Amino acid sequence: MSRNVLGTNVVTQVALVVRNAETTAAAWAELLGVDPLEIGLTKPDEGEGTMYRGRPTQGRAKLAFFDLGSVRLEIIEPVGGPSTWAEHLDRHGEGVHHIAFRIQGMDEKLSRLAEHGLPTVQAGYFTGGRYGYVGSEPKLGVVLELLEHFG
Amino acid sequence: MSRNVLGTNVVTQVALVVRNAETTAAAWAELLGVDPLEIGLTKPDEGEGTMYRGRPTQGRAKLAFFDLGSVRLEIIEPVGGPSTWAEHLDRHGEGVHHIAFRIQGMDEKLSRLAEHGLPTVQAGYFTGGRYGYVGSEPKLGVVLELLEHFG
Repeated sequence: MSRNVLGTNVVTQVALVVRNAETTAAAWAELLGVDPLEIGLTKPDEGEGTMYRGRPTQGRAKLAFFDLGSVRLEIIEPVGGPSTWAEHLDRHGEGVHHIAFRIQGMDEKLSRLAEHGLPTVQAGYFTGGRYGYVGSEPKLGVVLELLEHFG
Repeated sequence: MSRNVLGTNVVTQVALVVRNAETTAAAWAELLGVDPLEIGLTKPDEGEGTMYRGRPTQGRAKLAFFDLGSVRLEIIEPVGGPSTWAEHLDRHGEGVHHIAFRIQGMDEKLSRLAEHGLPTVQAGYFTGGRYGYVGSEPKLGVVLELLEHFG
């Protein structure tokens, strides 16, 4: 195709899935000489409306964040319920789960990706925005996350 | 520890290992609406002096690159010989192999990391510089690459 489907080429986040977010965050804190920007469970109300492979899910996560220059490192420990995070941990072990791009027009972008064989596998909300994970591993070698901030 | 072991927190590269670099690069080119910056085999003379788990290796790779904002995407297809790339593909399948940081003082940095339980697993040269891969998955959830440019 002749134009950028995402509308951006700027990666804003690299995210790991791990078995214990606090242990992994402690190792990064030691390496970088800083505390994580934040660490904690996703809020229960942020899980409202989360869809995983076409069905509502109670999947949650414990999250920690570090700044890596212009990119944010996200450390994800899956907590309960089916999720793309738990699936990745089961299938591949610990490692990078996705890279994220900040986009505008989530529904249109996810539709266009699906038309190109890149289906949405999980979508939901966070405080101030929404996200969508794209099942792009077979084609792109890694899951893409689309992030849209409200307002 | 109280200071940053790497001397930087700026990630400069996210690298995938895949089975076919050209196929995966074509999918990224379609997504982003651009051609790869470059694509080709590592040069034979760049493999001189490459060490993998303490032994010389003839491991080479086919590489493709895309710009993702301030981060470069590297797509790696292992070609021959043992390497950390081939090992990752065998153990985890396609996915992100490492994230890279540009550092100064390779030997001192690798030594300090090793003292903290983060051993060097592969090291070598490229035109204009050298690299070292750190076996950091068990602690950090992902391999780190240190890149040092000469001059």
